[in-house]
Formats: sequence, structure tokens, C-alpha cells
Amino acid sequence: MDTSAIMGALWIIISGILVFFMQAGFTLVETGFSRSKNAGNIIMKNLMDLIVGSLGFWAIGYTVMYGETIGGFIGTPSLFYNEGADMYNLFFQTVFAATAATIVSGAVAERTKFSTYVIFSFIMTVIIYPIAGHWTWQGEGWLTDLGFVDFAGSSIVHSVGGWAALIGAIMVGPRIGKYKDGVSQAIPGHNLLLGALGVMILWLGWFGFNGGSQLAFGSEEDVIAVGSVLITTNLAAAAGAFAALMYTWLRYGQPDISMTLNGALAGLVCITAGCAAVTPGSATIMGLIAGVVVVMSITFIDEKLKVDDPVGAVSVHGVCGALGTLLIGVFAIDGGLINGGGFALLGVQATGVLAYGAWAIVCSYIVFKILKVTIGLRVSEKEEIEGLDKAEHGIGVYNE
Amino acid sequence: MDTSAIMGALWIIISGILVFFMQAGFTLVETGFSRSKNAGNIIMKNLMDLIVGSLGFWAIGYTVMYGETIGGFIGTPSLFYNEGADMYNLFFQTVFAATAATIVSGAVAERTKFSTYVIFSFIMTVIIYPIAGHWTWQGEGWLTDLGFVDFAGSSIVHSVGGWAALIGAIMVGPRIGKYKDGVSQAIPGHNLLLGALGVMILWLGWFGFNGGSQLAFGSEEDVIAVGSVLITTNLAAAAGAFAALMYTWLRYGQPDISMTLNGALAGLVCITAGCAAVTPGSATIMGLIAGVVVVMSITFIDEKLKVDDPVGAVSVHGVCGALGTLLIGVFAIDGGLINGGGFALLGVQATGVLAYGAWAIVCSYIVFKILKVTIGLRVSEKEEIEGLDKAEHGIGVYNE
Amino acid sequence: MDTSAIMGALWIIISGILVFFMQAGFTLVETGFSRSKNAGNIIMKNLMDLIVGSLGFWAIGYTVMYGETIGGFIGTPSLFYNEGADMYNLFFQTVFAATAATIVSGAVAERTKFSTYVIFSFIMTVIIYPIAGHWTWQGEGWLTDLGFVDFAGSSIVHSVGGWAALIGAIMVGPRIGKYKDGVSQAIPGHNLLLGALGVMILWLGWFGFNGGSQLAFGSEEDVIAVGSVLITTNLAAAAGAFAALMYTWLRYGQPDISMTLNGALAGLVCITAGCAAVTPGSATIMGLIAGVVVVMSITFIDEKLKVDDPVGAVSVHGVCGALGTLLIGVFAIDGGLINGGGFALLGVQATGVLAYGAWAIVCSYIVFKILKVTIGLRVSEKEEIEGLDKAEHGIGVYNE
Repeated sequence: MDTSAIMGALWIIISGILVFFMQAGFTLVETGFSRSKNAGNIIMKNLMDLIVGSLGFWAIGYTVMYGETIGGFIGTPSLFYNEGADMYNLFFQTVFAATAATIVSGAVAERTKFSTYVIFSFIMTVIIYPIAGHWTWQGEGWLTDLGFVDFAGSSIVHSVGGWAALIGAIMVGPRIGKYKDGVSQAIPGHNLLLGALGVMILWLGWFGFNGGSQLAFGSEEDVIAVGSVLITTNLAAAAGAFAALMYTWLRYGQPDISMTLNGALAGLVCITAGCAAVTPGSATIMGLIAGVVVVMSITFIDEKLKVDDPVGAVSVHGVCGALGTLLIGVFAIDGGLINGGGFALLGVQATGVLAYGAWAIVCSYIVFKILKVTIGLRVSEKEEIEGLDKAEHGIGVYNE
Repeated sequence: MDTSAIMGALWIIISGILVFFMQAGFTLVETGFSRSKNAGNIIMKNLMDLIVGSLGFWAIGYTVMYGETIGGFIGTPSLFYNEGADMYNLFFQTVFAATAATIVSGAVAERTKFSTYVIFSFIMTVIIYPIAGHWTWQGEGWLTDLGFVDFAGSSIVHSVGGWAALIGAIMVGPRIGKYKDGVSQAIPGHNLLLGALGVMILWLGWFGFNGGSQLAFGSEEDVIAVGSVLITTNLAAAAGAFAALMYTWLRYGQPDISMTLNGALAGLVCITAGCAAVTPGSATIMGLIAGVVVVMSITFIDEKLKVDDPVGAVSVHGVCGALGTLLIGVFAIDGGLINGGGFALLGVQATGVLAYGAWAIVCSYIVFKILKVTIGLRVSEKEEIEGLDKAEHGIGVYNE
Repeated sequence: MDTSAIMGALWIIISGILVFFMQAGFTLVETGFSRSKNAGNIIMKNLMDLIVGSLGFWAIGYTVMYGETIGGFIGTPSLFYNEGADMYNLFFQTVFAATAATIVSGAVAERTKFSTYVIFSFIMTVIIYPIAGHWTWQGEGWLTDLGFVDFAGSSIVHSVGGWAALIGAIMVGPRIGKYKDGVSQAIPGHNLLLGALGVMILWLGWFGFNGGSQLAFGSEEDVIAVGSVLITTNLAAAAGAFAALMYTWLRYGQPDISMTLNGALAGLVCITAGCAAVTPGSATIMGLIAGVVVVMSITFIDEKLKVDDPVGAVSVHGVCGALGTLLIGVFAIDGGLINGGGFALLGVQATGVLAYGAWAIVCSYIVFKILKVTIGLRVSEKEEIEGLDKAEHGIGVYNE
């Protein structure tokens, strides 16, 4: 290992630590944007994503993802990974896996059984997500061969998580009282300040998520790449928040707090695939698009599709993840439509988007279906009304 | 780029990420130290500092600051900066710019119109702060030529922000109910625990703020410099908090929580200019001085000047920023008064303090004046009493 | 200083910054797990650990720990340390010292006098902890000579803090209302969400705590070591939380939130000594053991010993710190019982555990005894019932 490689390992480790912190961000966003009577249950589900993700990804998921390829589809699994010189990379990949799992918890919050959720989270971490990752990131997967671009995971992490969240939210059904006579009722989050802190922590962690995905820091090229990634990431987040703020201001007469926060996340998700492939200017435009799309998508899913997604996870991660993956075909410096690259890359990106969508939807449908007919997806009506904290954990989060 | 330069870039990137996190710290301090009915509005203003700062500093502010000098006063602006090998530095400078802007929001909290604030924040980021920075940090500015020392921005970031905050607080006027018959009324913050968390996050981020300002990490000299900066920064913060605690304990009979927290910030602001120029012992003394001064200043501004600054931003950033800049003339290892350097450096530092004070006061007066006679500075009395969250954003931060 | 050494310094600095952040984690855990009326007092005590720790460790503690050895027992003290090339290391060691001190505050929360606590914290930082560290980490201490292994401080930091916490909790006595007719009464924490955030911040900081203890990052060997440490640390935390969750679920019928959070901390404390000495599999087993032990220990101390430890600090840090130190003798790749090493290492580890236990117990007993007969340990009954925030600081943490 030469100096360059050691510096790369250092950067990957630091990035992994930043991505780890995103778990706290997700926990705060999901609790802050939902009701206080379920906050403890959401904490526990997020913790379980991290716990099950850490144990499961080490035990088998990592090799399902990065093991020798079987037909470009799946890695050759082996148990309890223990290759000294690669452990720092296992760490970085583990925190990514935990992120993919945790996206679902927000969409099914406030009514899903704890045990059911834990089982789904485990399957997500050891099967659904690692196979998805194998296709593009292992280096010999079938999407790699096509030239599909997903630098840090708009599709692999976020849209896979987002589509699984959609299926989960549909199958679990809406919270009691969410729809009255077919009309969506607002259920405001209990602590937007903690939600905002969560968004800021996620924004922070994203610098590791996207920047660390360079997987190296040993040459001028790496410095240029990582520096550009930090700027595109930050601009897309800022532009996403700005667009959501202006859109709600113009449309509803007031700048909306929750939507502005979701706009920042939308920009971040959207730029994740292409953060190393587009210019700062394009990143800003992509963020602006994502910030508007996320507001429209949240409203559409909530009011038209009548799917109850308490934190907007499907729109933020699913829709904007797919959007960002596609927009690479438009904005990529190499091969993007507006840069004279024609439709070739756009076609490849669309193929990837569809493949990941189909994969996540089919897998999560099967898993949720099996869980539904066995242990059940949902707490009882009585428990839901009382709140999951008291019902499932015997204690409220807030006391004297 | 050799190995030393790459390591430097890595350190600057990590430091920038830490400084980014200070945005969360400011948000928590400002919300925690004010009332719950305005917490959402403060979140939004802090977010806008980051959003507008990120977009504006990239779009033009960075070149206003670091572009080729025009007479030592201002850089040659160019639009939408995009120099690959320098993007990591743009990132580091962007988060500094966002910090300068965010200082003002605390002082004008709980009664300022959202749109007005956003416009001021934008002008701060693209004109007032970058020109201030140009004078010292671009390398050919007029204060650089004089030998003015401001390593990480006690004057350039903090006092510029603090004096703008003073003008803002004066022109917006005190909150309703703050002064009864000319006597200041205490308006306690709604969540000191989140305020304390904010201070700890700021303290954390400051290691990047000051440590990263070495702008290199490739030699033994850099290791010594950064190591010393971390120690002087930490000692000044500890000493500042300690002094504020003891001062309030001795004077008022009880160790005051808010003042102790502000004491830590005061020590941090005070050491920022000289963190690389003084010994650990001197840093401790400077922190002790700042910790007492900040308590006296907050009391003086609140009770005598009758300027309503809800979080003490003027005292923490303006007064202690100027104080720290001046004290370099006293304590600097090279050229400080107590180290036999005479009054020369002290004179230069005083020149810089006055120049930055005059610049920030004149500029922010003009901008706030124009905003006052056009769109207005302040929400209506009804809105202020109801709370800005409901009035400007249609929702409270805290719900069931 | 060659490139390797500079990279090592960079990693140590980053790790130190992460460990610094643990102060925020401890503050949130301790406030979240206790009542709102004492939150401000707990903030202040945690701040004092950091303040007094930073000042005291620089002023004298660092040389008591790392100065030239006097008989393998204590370093040669000198005042106000100022060796440029070693300042980054002073920073790293300072944040460790602050951690050792802060453990005690949780166990004596909600009834201890502020002034008393501050004095104890100071003595902890400049005498009790540095001497403990000298025995193993200075390189010529008597436990180093025996071959005692404590990589990052399960014993030196955590069990020393935990046993001091035990003595403190015993001597201060239980909170009013904690035991009715000899039966322990549950006093739930006032904000488990902030407690959970605190645990996540601690988990995050632990990557610096354990990873940084490699004290180098300049070779492939270092990359392997640090990578392994991150994985063992993360697996032990996950396993600890998992075990506590399953144990409470099976035993009490519901997965317990507080215990799951404490299980994560128990796993982290347990792996701290051996994180570089055991395999990922062994780390997982150690975490599982710690997760069960911590629940049993908290229950035993609370219900059988009738010692009132509001946050479970004695069990988490004392018991699991000793446990983890001992388990190295069982699981170490080199010399562990199950790896054919016989009982030699186990004996050495037991010696260290006993030595540190005796040292912490004797020292803290003497200090608390002196404090008891002089200024007193405890607030008045009236103050305790009113809450320490109002009584000692004149203000509550939560306001309108």
C-alpha cells in the first residue's frame, strides 16, 4: 500500500464516519415529522436498521454485493467477512447499507409492527440492497457493462429504498384518520426543530456519502473530483431547498418549512448519482428541478394516490433518486444530451432506473406479502390510537 | 500536486465539513435562546443563510473576495466559478461566508420580516463579507500590506457579522414587551438544552474553522501549527466559559447557564484571529478576558443601550471579535506588546478593527435603510404577538 | 516528520475532534434520561467537565500521565505544557480526560451540589485519571511491564470513571422518592429522543475514540488495524444493542428503549480495550455478552444494591469496562484462552481490572469523603424537590 492508497483509506474512513452520522439525521427527521406518541418506536426502528444492517451486512450482505460475480447478477456469498486490508471498505459499505434500509421506516411510520419491520429491514440489508449494488458497483455487474452511471447511489441506495417504501406504505395502509371521506388530512410533525436538525445532519453526512464515493484521495485528479463533488452536492441541496421554498411561497402564499427541508433532501438525492459527472451549474439546475418535483410528488402521492407517507420518503428518495439518475443522461459532461451526447446515455440511465424500480418493487412486494399473511404488518387499531410507544415499548418518549 | 498538497486539500475539506456543521449549531443556539412561537422562522432564516450563501458565493461572492485585486479593495468578479483544482477551496470559503451571514439572524430574531432578511443575507454574502475578506485574505489587499493579522476571522467573519447585527437590531427595534418604562425585561429562551447542544456543535465546528485556516497539512510545521491552533482554540473556549460562569456566580450569586454558554462562544470568537499567533497561556488569558467582557457587554447593550439582541450576537461576535483582533497586538509571540514588540502591531490591529467596524456599519446601515423604506423591516404587531411561525409559515414547530 | 507521521497526526486530530463531540453525546444522554427540572444543572456539570478538563489537563494532568515515569506509577509533572510538535497529541489526550470525568456526572445527577461536583471533576482530571493512564499508556508504567492490554481505555477511562461513579452514587445517596419501603421506583427520563441522539453521537465519537488510539495512520498495517477497529467497534455496539433488546423483549415482553440504547453503549465500552486485539466475530460475541450483562447489572444495582444511578453509568462504564478488559484474556487473537493462549493473559487482565478498580474506589472515596465533611455533597431537600435548575441556576431549561 503506497502513500496514495493510505490517504485514500483515510478519506474513505472519514467519509464512512460521516455517513454513519446520517442515521441520527434520519432518526430526527422521521421522529420530528411524525407524532410524539410514536417517537420511541421510530427511534427503535432506526436503531434496528443500524443494528441489523451492521450485523447482517458483515455476516453476508457485503459478499452478496462485492463477491465474485455470478452472471453479473449477484456476488458469491461467504459468511462473516474478515479480510484485514479491506475492513475499512467494509465499514464504508456497511453504513451505506444501513442507509438503504432506513429509508423505508419513515414511509411506514406510526402504524407498522416492530417485529415485522425488523424482518423487512434485515432482508433489505442482506438481499435486496446488496444485489442491487452488485449490478453497478461490483465492477462486473450487468449494468456496469451497459455503462450505467450511479456514482454514489441515487438509484442503488435511494430509489431502491424509496420504491420499497412505496410498496410498504401501500400495503400497510394509511394511518387512522389520515383520509376522511377520501380527503387527505394534515398530520403535522411534533417537532420540526428536531426535523430541521436532522436535515442538517443528513446534509452534512452527504459530503461523506458523495465525496467518499470517489473511493480514493491520492492524486490531483482525486482532489479535483472530490472538490467538485462537494460543490455539486452543496449547490444541489441549496437549490433544492430554494426551489421548494419559492414554489410553496408562490403557490400557497407562504414559504413552507417542511417542504423547504424536504427540498434540500430532494436536491441531495437527485445529485447523488451524477455529483461527479456534471458541472456546478448543471447541479444547481438539477437541484432546482428536484425541489419543485418533490413538492408536486408529495402532494400527488398524498392527495391523488392516497398513499400515506408521513415523511415524504417515497418522493424524496424514490422519485428524486430516479429523477437524478435520469438527468445524468441530460446533463453529464461526457455523454449528456445537452452536451451533444445524444440519447445513448439517457437510454442507459432509463434502463437502470426501470431495472432498479422493478427490482425493488417486486422484492419488497413479495416480502411484505409474506409478512402480511404470517405475522401481520400492522399494529391493532387500539395500539395505533394509543401510540406505538406505549403499546409496543411500554413507555412514552416524553416525561416530566 | 504533490503529496503535501493533497494532504492539505484533505484537511481543508474535512475542516470545511466541520464548519458546515456550525450552521446546525447557530440554528440551535438561536432557536433555543428565543421563544417557541418563532422557532420555525429562525430555522428558515438560518437555512436561507446557507442556501443563499452557497448559491451566491459560488455565483459571484468568491471572486469578489479572491479575484485579482482592484486597488487592494475588491476582487475582480466573475460569474459561476468553476476551476476544478480549486473547488475544494471554494467549498471551504463558502461555509465561511454562510457563517458571516448567519450571525445577523440571531440579533434580529423574533420580529424581522422573512423576505427582508433573505435579501440582507444575500447582500452580506456577495458584497459586504467578500470585500471585507479581500482586504486581508486575498494576499494583495490593503490590510495585508499593513501586516494586519486575522488568521481565521475574528474581524473578517465575526466582527463584520456582529456589527451588521448591531445595526440590524437597532433599526428593526426591540421586540414588543422587551422594554417596559425603559426597563429591560428578561425573555428567556424556550429550550436551553438545544441551545447548549448548539454551543457544543459550534465549539466542535470551530476546530475546523480555526484549524482549517492553516490551509495546509503537509509538513511538520503544519502539524505544529494546527496542533497549537486546536489547543489555543479549546483553551480559549474553556477559559471563556469558566470566566463567565465565575463572574456571574460571584456577581449574581448563581452560575448562569446562558452566560456560561455565551462565554464559551466569546472565547472562541476572541481567539479566532490569533489562534496561530499566541501561546496556550496567552490564549487562556484571552479567553478569560472575553468571558468577562461578553457578560458585561450583553448587560450593557441590553440595559444601557437598550438594543434588543435576543441571543447576544453583537456582544459575542462583534465585541469579542474586535477584542480578539486587538489582543493580538498585546499577546502575539511575534510583535505583541508583552513580548517586547512595542505598539506597532497593536496600531495595525486597531486600524483593522476600525476599518472592519466602519465597513460593516456603513454597509449594513445603507442596506437596512433601503429595505426599511421599500419592503419594510418588521412584521406587523399582530404577527409578532401571534408568533412568526404561524404568521409567516402557517404552522407551529411544536405539535402533538 | 515524514509523510507517514504527518498522516498519523491528521488522523489523531480528526479522531480527537470526534471524541470531543462525545461531550455533546454525554450531555444529551444524561439530560434525556433524567428529569426536566434538572436538565440545566446537568448541562452545566457536563460543560464543567470539559472546561475543567481542558484547563486542568493542559495545566498539569498531561504530564502527570505522560511525563517521565517515577517508579512506573506517576509521571513527572510540569506546568502548562507547551511542546509545539506534540500539541496535537495533547489535544487528543485532553478530550479523553474530559470523557473520564464526565462519566461520574450521570450517576450523581439530580441531587449533587454543583460546586462539589466541579471540585471532584477537577481532581479526576488532574490526578485520578492521569495516574491510571500512566500505568499502561505512558510506556514505562507497571501495568505495561506486565503486558496488560487496554487499547483505548475500557479500564483506564471507562471503568475508572464507572467505579468513581459508583462511589459517588453511594455516598450522595438516592434521589428523594427513588426508594419507597425499600422498593425501587422508576423515574423515567424526560426526553428519550434526545437520549437516543446522545447515544448515536457517542457511537459516532467512539470511532475516533477507538480508531484514533492506533495513534498512527502511515502504513498498510495502520490501515488494517484502524479498519478492523472500526468494524469491531461497530459490531460490538450493534450486538450490544441487539442483545439488550432481545433480552428485555423475551424477559419483559417488550423491547425496552432505554435498555437497548444502554446496550449499544455497553457494547462500545466492552470492546474499547480489545478492539484491536480480537476478530470481528469475537467482537460480536463480546457485544452480545455486554448487552445482556448491562441489563442485569442495571437491574441488580438498582433493585438489589439499592444504589441510585439515574443513567446506568456504573453498569455501562464500570461493569462493562471491567468485563471487556477481562474478555481480552478469553478472545485475544494473541494469547486469548480460546485461541490456545492459556490463562496467562487472563491473569494479567484480571490484575489490571483489580488495580484500576481499587485505585478508582479508594481515590474517589477519599475525595468524596473530604467533600462531604467540608462543603457537603448534596443540595437541600427543598432544592432537590424544586429542581436544581431553579435552585442552583435561577432558571428552568424549558420556557414558553
